[in-house]
Amino acid sequence: MPSTTPSAEYLYETVANDIRTLITSGTYRPGDRLPSVRQLSRQKRISVSTALQAYMLLESRGLVEARPQSGYYVRQRTFTPPPEPEISSPASDPTQVSLEELAFMTLRDTENPNLVKLGIALPDPDLLPTKKLLRIIAGLKGGKELQANAYVFPPGYEPLRVQIAQRAHLAGISLAPGDLVITSGCLDAVDLCLRAVCQKGDIVAIDSPTHFGLLQCLEGLGLKALEIPTHPREGISLSALRFALDHNPVRAVVLVSNFNNPLGCLMSDDNKRELVKMLAAREIPLIEDDVFGEMSFSDQRPTACKAFDEKELVLWCSSFSKDIAPGFRVGWCAPGRYQTKVEWLKFVSSEGTAAITQVALAELLATSGMDYHLRRLRRLYAFNLEQVSLQVMRSFPEGTRLTRPTGGFLLWVQLPEGCDSLQLYKRALVEGITLAPGYLFSATPRYAGFIRLCTATWNHAVEQAITRLGALVVEGQAAQPAGRRRAE
Amino acid sequence: MPSTTPSAEYLYETVANDIRTLITSGTYRPGDRLPSVRQLSRQKRISVSTALQAYMLLESRGLVEARPQSGYYVRQRTFTPPPEPEISSPASDPTQVSLEELAFMTLRDTENPNLVKLGIALPDPDLLPTKKLLRIIAGLKGGKELQANAYVFPPGYEPLRVQIAQRAHLAGISLAPGDLVITSGCLDAVDLCLRAVCQKGDIVAIDSPTHFGLLQCLEGLGLKALEIPTHPREGISLSALRFALDHNPVRAVVLVSNFNNPLGCLMSDDNKRELVKMLAAREIPLIEDDVFGEMSFSDQRPTACKAFDEKELVLWCSSFSKDIAPGFRVGWCAPGRYQTKVEWLKFVSSEGTAAITQVALAELLATSGMDYHLRRLRRLYAFNLEQVSLQVMRSFPEGTRLTRPTGGFLLWVQLPEGCDSLQLYKRALVEGITLAPGYLFSATPRYAGFIRLCTATWNHAVEQAITRLGALVVEGQAAQPAGRRRAE
Repeated sequence: MPSTTPSAEYLYETVANDIRTLITSGTYRPGDRLPSVRQLSRQKRISVSTALQAYMLLESRGLVEARPQSGYYVRQRTFTPPPEPEISSPASDPTQVSLEELAFMTLRDTENPNLVKLGIALPDPDLLPTKKLLRIIAGLKGGKELQANAYVFPPGYEPLRVQIAQRAHLAGISLAPGDLVITSGCLDAVDLCLRAVCQKGDIVAIDSPTHFGLLQCLEGLGLKALEIPTHPREGISLSALRFALDHNPVRAVVLVSNFNNPLGCLMSDDNKRELVKMLAAREIPLIEDDVFGEMSFSDQRPTACKAFDEKELVLWCSSFSKDIAPGFRVGWCAPGRYQTKVEWLKFVSSEGTAAITQVALAELLATSGMDYHLRRLRRLYAFNLEQVSLQVMRSFPEGTRLTRPTGGFLLWVQLPEGCDSLQLYKRALVEGITLAPGYLFSATPRYAGFIRLCTATWNHAVEQAITRLGALVVEGQAAQPAGRRRAE
Repeated sequence: MPSTTPSAEYLYETVANDIRTLITSGTYRPGDRLPSVRQLSRQKRISVSTALQAYMLLESRGLVEARPQSGYYVRQRTFTPPPEPEISSPASDPTQVSLEELAFMTLRDTENPNLVKLGIALPDPDLLPTKKLLRIIAGLKGGKELQANAYVFPPGYEPLRVQIAQRAHLAGISLAPGDLVITSGCLDAVDLCLRAVCQKGDIVAIDSPTHFGLLQCLEGLGLKALEIPTHPREGISLSALRFALDHNPVRAVVLVSNFNNPLGCLMSDDNKRELVKMLAAREIPLIEDDVFGEMSFSDQRPTACKAFDEKELVLWCSSFSKDIAPGFRVGWCAPGRYQTKVEWLKFVSSEGTAAITQVALAELLATSGMDYHLRRLRRLYAFNLEQVSLQVMRSFPEGTRLTRPTGGFLLWVQLPEGCDSLQLYKRALVEGITLAPGYLFSATPRYAGFIRLCTATWNHAVEQAITRLGALVVEGQAAQPAGRRRAE
């Protein structure tokens, strides 16, 4: 903005150009109403007639139109644009991008409705009680309506904490409502717990492979990850962990005890007890991510490590994102002796979690239908995972290995020797299929030959997609010698 | 849990004691249904008959009751408890607590329905479009219903970013929807921006007095606050800031340009332009908290510093918490050249903001009623602030000074010489009135003689509360010499 008084002509052209930029950038879209002449004149400190001239200029250029008694609107395009020249593939090349960008790309694929999405750990939207939640919100009255649009400070909405404490009891954990802090999803809970127990530069031991959300979170906090070997069925190797603890100043351990992401492995109660004991003896906090705990295929919800915690050193984290409401971003933690610290960190970073989501979930959990919902979900996810596994076995070439999870909706597939998951990701994307390449599950490329598939949904499109993936792996194998020749 | 096989008697007593603890701690409340005998037996790995024995023991102790065909429930207390001995005042002594605890206390006062709440910057719940928002949520259909319960990754829900970019235009800021990141409220936005531009230990210049949310946020990130003198009407002193920048390695500046909290001061456009220029010349980012920007008492929404930003160095932050939906925790920032970093930090700390709140707000903003809502809000807040000011002038003793804000709903009151805000806070709390003592607005006790009052609501209770506050100040003055005598 020039400080000398510019000529009126200069002014209305500037104003018109400003609005044109907002139209081309998508801030104002065809059919949108533009600021009134009076608003424009006030906001730009120009006269009403200059504002009017700006709009008339835009009108003469065919960008806006006046509607009687109503003001100026962005014009709908009426002409048919000529065919555009062919453009190159919009998928940027993942070999050129960092792990961070690759993770972002995988996530953003979820917004493309034309893809078969096997790449991200999303529950099947048809299996979520969304309609019930929206109905509950619509029915809020009086005090609850007021609370739904008021600040709720940490530790969070009390009736929700009561419901979570009751569910925790079924997982073998005895908690008072005051032992819980409501968070914005499980990753927020893990992030807060890490901030409560670690300083930048500290070493954190994690299960490996692990989900990229955790890897990125550690990177965001400037923490160093120490990856501990993890058995595809039994979970983290306690002997490897003990060795690591004996030789490194490990400040905390973070792991998924029940149905690890991506392995789907489940620690036995004996191992959980031993793990808690081992860490307690060293006064090392355990941050337990239990987000898949409710997704067991058996009737029995597995115990959490927190159930064996006698020294208040286990920080138990989970959320409603996998079984009820991914769009609500409500999770929690029971941070043991770090309760006050976590409450304070939650307050100073965001003041608290949205009230409306907490009130709605507390109401939903208090209804009697939740047990039925969870039983149905578990049966369907067990069925779908089995179908996806069978289809992989039918379609993928010999040498392929896969996990046998007893809960959750993720399958970890080891491709035959020499196959690269990033190449497969790129080829699959071109054909409208997404998957999570193994690179995302470690800070090193040690899982280059693995992919993770989401098994939450089973239908004809998924069946075809997996058949096609199998064919792509076979094609990749056939292309290998040629590729090697070129490299020589 | 002992590893040897315990006797059945020991077992059912242990299980019964566990449930009793959960009843006394509030996890299970009178009337709540307890886990079924079968659930309890599975979860505790005990026989069905042992589980049944545990419940029978609790029943014999009068804690639970069996309902036919339904299971065990926590018993309603039927006896009238004898009168309890008188207890000491539940308000802990603020002189014994840290700034952090004092801030928490002030916030928690908001959950007590029996207090007249002048202590926290809360909009009047009756002036929020809550019913309309809930109705919008109830009416979501098809694709929007699905989106409301799906993950939305950073930068956030696009239709909401379009609406915010349009509102930004009215504040003189030209933004494309892609220039915005949706956050969980304004403090989350400021926190993310600070993490994007600073490292632990860095010095950040801030306006002073400033709101304790920011002070606590800086503390949480391990940043050092450099407090810059701020004029009660004109805002931050540019000469003092320039001096500070010349003598300190300041890494970023954070301030509220429009209607600072607690002062309510408004920077002129000339000062905003000069500030942006001064910082741009030094390549220092400005994090602009504009959460009260829409709350101007005039028709003209003031410009933001961001409007003068030519080097993409202003990170503009705001939210819907003050004018539309405090319970939704939705804010945003336009982080300029730090866009990618902020998106990434948002992703790695919490994956994103709740979808349902973003979808509902995008729908609300697209309706035509928003301008009317804001105009009404501004008129009412102008009126209420004037009434509170007049009442303070009538009730408080000579020597009291107060700000004259032209927007927002906060009043900053300087008490007469020698009056202490913490003493007043304590005396007022006993009488059911809360206020924010000046100690909360600086890392030093320099505002000991100030209080902040929220003026969002004006009614008979508020009128009486302010009259009473005035009387308490007079009483405090009268007590002063005596107090001094005792100290001598």
